[in-house]
Amino acid sequence: MSELRRDPITGRWNIINTDEPSGPKDFHLEPFTPSAAACPFCPGNERLTPAEIYALRPSVSAANGSDWSLRVIPNKFPALRIEGELGLRGLGLFDLSNGIGAHEVIIETPDHRRQMADLTLPELEQTLGVFRARSLDLRGDRRLKYTLIFKNFGRDAGASLEHSHSQLIALPIIPKRVMEELKGAARYAEFRGRCPYCDMLHQELEEDERLVAENKGFLAFCPFVSSFPFETWILPRAHHSDFAAITQEGLGDLARILKDVLLRLRHGLSDPPYNFILHTAPIEPQPREEYHWHIELTPKLTQVAGFEWGTGFYINPTPPELAAKVLREVAI
Amino acid sequence: MSELRRDPITGRWNIINTDEPSGPKDFHLEPFTPSAAACPFCPGNERLTPAEIYALRPSVSAANGSDWSLRVIPNKFPALRIEGELGLRGLGLFDLSNGIGAHEVIIETPDHRRQMADLTLPELEQTLGVFRARSLDLRGDRRLKYTLIFKNFGRDAGASLEHSHSQLIALPIIPKRVMEELKGAARYAEFRGRCPYCDMLHQELEEDERLVAENKGFLAFCPFVSSFPFETWILPRAHHSDFAAITQEGLGDLARILKDVLLRLRHGLSDPPYNFILHTAPIEPQPREEYHWHIELTPKLTQVAGFEWGTGFYINPTPPELAAKVLREVAI
Repeated sequence: MSELRRDPITGRWNIINTDEPSGPKDFHLEPFTPSAAACPFCPGNERLTPAEIYALRPSVSAANGSDWSLRVIPNKFPALRIEGELGLRGLGLFDLSNGIGAHEVIIETPDHRRQMADLTLPELEQTLGVFRARSLDLRGDRRLKYTLIFKNFGRDAGASLEHSHSQLIALPIIPKRVMEELKGAARYAEFRGRCPYCDMLHQELEEDERLVAENKGFLAFCPFVSSFPFETWILPRAHHSDFAAITQEGLGDLARILKDVLLRLRHGLSDPPYNFILHTAPIEPQPREEYHWHIELTPKLTQVAGFEWGTGFYINPTPPELAAKVLREVAI
Repeated sequence: MSELRRDPITGRWNIINTDEPSGPKDFHLEPFTPSAAACPFCPGNERLTPAEIYALRPSVSAANGSDWSLRVIPNKFPALRIEGELGLRGLGLFDLSNGIGAHEVIIETPDHRRQMADLTLPELEQTLGVFRARSLDLRGDRRLKYTLIFKNFGRDAGASLEHSHSQLIALPIIPKRVMEELKGAARYAEFRGRCPYCDMLHQELEEDERLVAENKGFLAFCPFVSSFPFETWILPRAHHSDFAAITQEGLGDLARILKDVLLRLRHGLSDPPYNFILHTAPIEPQPREEYHWHIELTPKLTQVAGFEWGTGFYINPTPPELAAKVLREVAI
């Protein structure tokens, strides 16, 4: 089991395991499994995972059989669990609650050797469609306030299994980082009367220095204030706060630009470890009109060290203008 | 050269190199140097570093000679430079300024083989005294608003040289992370009429579950809301916002508890990489009465991954109650 514990000074809620740690050193996932033989995400090994939540498979086939093309399962070592009450309470100066939430794994392909960048456009569109479907499904649970979808690719980016997968964690609290973006966007909108992400999109198009790729629906660029070398954002041209409101046409455009950027990162930087993070609005009755959903891709090339932990600022050795030029010039 | 660039949404100021990256992959320091032969921090190799800012050496000896016991130098690859004007300006929706500030390296011992945990108590007290002296000296520069002192120990914690050293970065802006603590402490003090760190100190003493060590002046504990496994804070018992106001007796107490904790981490966790971060108040005419300086020590045992980047919350697999027990039981 886990607890959510709140720092009374910074307001940060951490998820803290309250069991004695057992087998795996942490409770993200199992240890990194490079060989396909024992991979719990490979077809034929379905018994090694909890029963599936969702899958794409021929309509005649039974759940948890091996003929799927995409599979969603609960994380075997979940940071949060769906069963139980939130039980919000105080303990001296701290606040805490039970570790309630959802922690799912989206296995994007049955093929152990193919990563997200290798998926065909229809397969990638299908995967993004499942991100949308799972996001919409979890809105039925009134305890949940935010759904985060992310991918850790490569051991140095935090992956513990090699087989291509993304993760979904639904939280009973709007995360600190998301609140910062929501409040920052609202403050900007109040002062300037516009969405800061829309302004950023126009400025990037106009300056034309940090663009990586674009298509009908999306722009990919290395942001002016990049925290990390080769950090790349994918921003929809149309202002919308909620990823899950994306149309089927939008999913097609997103699949195209995402594959393009992933291939540029792979070939421009020797297949680096990276994190993929989908930034979207919280689950709320009223939409956050001022917010603009987007994807942040950050290759893991440098160490976060004392300076970054102590300040919350980042030292980035690579000018984003140079990073974008390198990525633009990759032949794919 | 570098630029400070501000994210208009989150308010984060990143330090971004604007030169083409040259030799070293980043501009923290030179690549990790395991052998003593070419170490620029070893006595006899003073010519490999910029001229010293400060040193402890026999009074008859000349600057930059090799008979020092502690040496402070400008970082050869500084994130910020002391020369020039801040030049704060706007660029569309962004703000930026020149990378003005100080970036110093404190070489704690001439002996390549001894780490901070190996320093004698008088040597460690002397090092902490130099942290105080450099902090006080930089207050003369009116452009600087904050002095961060930190140590990256081990390659996985971001060190690029093995020879024991700490770093000091003085910034023209109060960092985001520090502002969060200042505002959070002020909010707590307004509501409860007390310092949250003093309350934490009393709660930790009372619950007696997460204490690691204590002496006359200080308490060391694994905080209730630990973000990382075995995260340990050293908090002075007396409420004071400013580390640099510490007395000589305080430096002695701090040296004792710091050495104690560093040895517990080394022997309890097989000499892990770690970050040492000194949290103190900004350089301001009026003291921040509500703040309480302290040291945060975080062994680097887990990867920060997509969940942490996307939320600003941390998943911590090790209950701090267990971490404290393990550290308490180390025989030193």
